[in-house]
Amino acid sequence: MPPLEVWLGVGSTYSYLTVMRAPALAAKAGVTLDWRPFSVRAIMQEMDNIPFATKPVKAAYMWRDIERRAAGFDLPVRVPAPYPLHDFDRANRIAVAARSEGWCEDYLRESYRLWFQEGVPAGSDDSLTRVLPACGQDIGRVLSVAGSAETQEAYDAATDAARGRGIFGAPSFVTSDGELFWGDDRLEEAIAWHKTAG
Amino acid sequence: MPPLEVWLGVGSTYSYLTVMRAPALAAKAGVTLDWRPFSVRAIMQEMDNIPFATKPVKAAYMWRDIERRAAGFDLPVRVPAPYPLHDFDRANRIAVAARSEGWCEDYLRESYRLWFQEGVPAGSDDSLTRVLPACGQDIGRVLSVAGSAETQEAYDAATDAARGRGIFGAPSFVTSDGELFWGDDRLEEAIAWHKTAG
Repeated sequence: MPPLEVWLGVGSTYSYLTVMRAPALAAKAGVTLDWRPFSVRAIMQEMDNIPFATKPVKAAYMWRDIERRAAGFDLPVRVPAPYPLHDFDRANRIAVAARSEGWCEDYLRESYRLWFQEGVPAGSDDSLTRVLPACGQDIGRVLSVAGSAETQEAYDAATDAARGRGIFGAPSFVTSDGELFWGDDRLEEAIAWHKTAG
Repeated sequence: MPPLEVWLGVGSTYSYLTVMRAPALAAKAGVTLDWRPFSVRAIMQEMDNIPFATKPVKAAYMWRDIERRAAGFDLPVRVPAPYPLHDFDRANRIAVAARSEGWCEDYLRESYRLWFQEGVPAGSDDSLTRVLPACGQDIGRVLSVAGSAETQEAYDAATDAARGRGIFGAPSFVTSDGELFWGDDRLEEAIAWHKTAG
């Protein structure tokens, strides 16, 4: 069975729940995960899809909904977390580099944990100086790789691949037979579908 | 226990699932429902919240998602259903009148059934000539009541009340302690919360 694709951008709020929940759920189902960081912001801007930044009523609901769902999953959470992220693209270029080197899941978990539990924005210097050592990575080396043309190309290619799958938001899950599920609240459905298709 | 408020506009696509599912789920939980038709379109326009009409990729996902979820609930569905509705406001003014007269649930079920199972747009003449008799109602009388100033005032008041609850989309559920849940995929959660809050 190929892995279930998990498409997200560091910067997506509901992805906090997915990053914290998916590894255990997938392991229990015997499913492996392929974390696919991409620029969800680029795609949403192309579509004029602005869910929260200009919509305070919807944003207020989103924070309460995340708080409520986190409580249901016994996950600590401090809302509202800093939003939107200032260093969105840097956070995602590092995720792209981490994926190619095999430590993407650790990076996402540590970044989101700091962001949603301690209020440290993902991708910020304060975050990276804690997250990268926790992942066993040298900060200078990672920043250099993340800033390279190769990483930018891989990041752009990932965003193109997301477009090709009809992705318009994050987190999104794509099963082995190409079914798309959008939103952390579809994670269980996506895993079940992927197993059946697999 | 007061009823669980179910806020929707005839015109909302995911509300098809709620209209068909909620009565049985609520009955099983010993919860009663208060169907609250309002102008979700007015609120979404105020917020510049246009989820599908200008977003073909997201719209394509929405139809597939509804199709997939309907199959999971053993509900027949024919997608894409005609969208957006031409007679949105008329469909909703009738719903408002039906609520005050006690046949709103029947009206919603018949309207959505024709719209999502047979492709007859809710609120259209073709729909009303079948739906209203099925609800035991005289067409001329209902159109007269639905077109009255009193019904328009009740419709506007309902939309104001929705604003006051922080509602920004449909379907939305408001529990007895004021918790807001948005989306058919939160229906079970809303019923459970409402029972606990009792």
